Amino acid sequence: MKINSVVIVGGTHGNESTGVFLYNKLKNQLTSFKGIKINYLLSNPKAAKECKRFIDHDLNRSFAHKDLNNIEKTGYEFNRAKAINSFIGPKGNPSTDFIIDMHTTTANMGVSVILVEQNPLNIRLAAYLSSKIKDLKIYSIGASAYMGDNDHSFLNSVTPHGFSLEVGPIANGIVRGDILQMTENTINHTLDFLQAHNNNTLGDLPETVEIFEHEKKISYPVDENKMITAYIHEEFEDKNYLPLKKGDPIFKTMNNEIIYFEEDKIYYPVFINEAAYYYKKTAFSLTTLNKIKVPQV
Amino acid sequence: MKINSVVIVGGTHGNESTGVFLYNKLKNQLTSFKGIKINYLLSNPKAAKECKRFIDHDLNRSFAHKDLNNIEKTGYEFNRAKAINSFIGPKGNPSTDFIIDMHTTTANMGVSVILVEQNPLNIRLAAYLSSKIKDLKIYSIGASAYMGDNDHSFLNSVTPHGFSLEVGPIANGIVRGDILQMTENTINHTLDFLQAHNNNTLGDLPETVEIFEHEKKISYPVDENKMITAYIHEEFEDKNYLPLKKGDPIFKTMNNEIIYFEEDKIYYPVFINEAAYYYKKTAFSLTTLNKIKVPQV
Repeated sequence: MKINSVVIVGGTHGNESTGVFLYNKLKNQLTSFKGIKINYLLSNPKAAKECKRFIDHDLNRSFAHKDLNNIEKTGYEFNRAKAINSFIGPKGNPSTDFIIDMHTTTANMGVSVILVEQNPLNIRLAAYLSSKIKDLKIYSIGASAYMGDNDHSFLNSVTPHGFSLEVGPIANGIVRGDILQMTENTINHTLDFLQAHNNNTLGDLPETVEIFEHEKKISYPVDENKMITAYIHEEFEDKNYLPLKKGDPIFKTMNNEIIYFEEDKIYYPVFINEAAYYYKKTAFSLTTLNKIKVPQV
Repeated sequence: MKINSVVIVGGTHGNESTGVFLYNKLKNQLTSFKGIKINYLLSNPKAAKECKRFIDHDLNRSFAHKDLNNIEKTGYEFNRAKAINSFIGPKGNPSTDFIIDMHTTTANMGVSVILVEQNPLNIRLAAYLSSKIKDLKIYSIGASAYMGDNDHSFLNSVTPHGFSLEVGPIANGIVRGDILQMTENTINHTLDFLQAHNNNTLGDLPETVEIFEHEKKISYPVDENKMITAYIHEEFEDKNYLPLKKGDPIFKTMNNEIIYFEEDKIYYPVFINEAAYYYKKTAFSLTTLNKIKVPQV
């Protein structure tokens, strides 16, 4: 299929200011690209104004069919998700062909393309972006049990094609030139790919692409009052996408005890020390590294 | 005077999680140090629980005499300030001898000791810490017009002796081992100093100490709707405490125009890209670098 329309989304998390800034910047500067119509959406304007992740509920966990179809799910974000779904969706038969949802993270994850669906176009795009942008990583939550089932709740699950773009590390509530540049660069390469895809001018892609597949979340140690009693060990800090193996230190407790990783399997951690996950006590997530065959057309 | 009691404060800004974590860690581990009683205060527990800077008003701007003495200043923090003032103060005649108020910043400021008052003990401590901790900076807001007058509103203005400790860069809402270590290290050196001060065993201090004196704040460019339309130029990002001179780039606008520093005088910027100041449109502050003679006893 041809990609005729792209929606670039900012402010899904209102305190990730990079997306809000680029929404305001790009909406007047980049409204089409070689035949592809580009629209913009400030997805959570109320949270963006208050510089909070969300008002009532995480908007990026509000797009599961079961919630979109449930009028009793109220609160700002559940209603906003329904409004957005009617505007750029509906999910299952969307009016939009492709979504780029701009996010940032406090974790040292560089540029991460997060896929909900591993369909041919998304995998080909992943291979293309991996070949164009040094150190870009592909992180798939799609084939996993991330959401408990396959009814994905991310905003960009409204379209089968597209991704969430995570860039970091950056504090919430600020804008940095380097992070803006990495975000815009990834958007520009994506538009190049889509245009070449539409015109059958892509040329050869790599035969395989490395995808980090979500497996599970790891929680902080807590006391009897559910208070977090440890922090990420200094040697583990910032080591996203690097192999974590048995015996590696992962936490240091308030009593200066070291907690080591105990699993025999090698995992690749992501979202190490992401601010947004503290309230859920999540310290980091674990992925496995897969080489996926890239579908050739 | 002898310093018999120290209060170590965490959570004055509820989203600066380092102070909250160290409050919980140290309150059971370090209750006295060679004759000095050490007490602890979680100053804004409600904001800490919600992981927000403040609920109604910045607690660290709530300790001016005019506000402490005004019962019509309501809201959570103005009341909390009065409660804290009665507990560790009262300001002007405090029951506590020394306050260390633990903060963090999203700006790349390393370890900064922020002084409200340049009295002999504080300056001697500043000289001591500067000699003990590489790259530690002394930032004085005391002699400036920072608060509009000399009625300082910082929590640690309750006692003449003490400081706010700013460590960064770190995102709000997270804890990092390196930042914890820098904070604890500064506290430990401070306690060493106070103990030696009490016992007249300090020995010689450097003859002078470098103090960065607050001069003024610089705002982001905004449009007619007061929306920020530029960001810190990449070359200026993270360059706290380094000389800023005429012709240096400071901002880049949404239209990729560069804005240059235009003043003839050389300043030393601080709090470049601090998240907490965006809502006030403050991009950074400027200081001048002074060499202060260290009072010898």
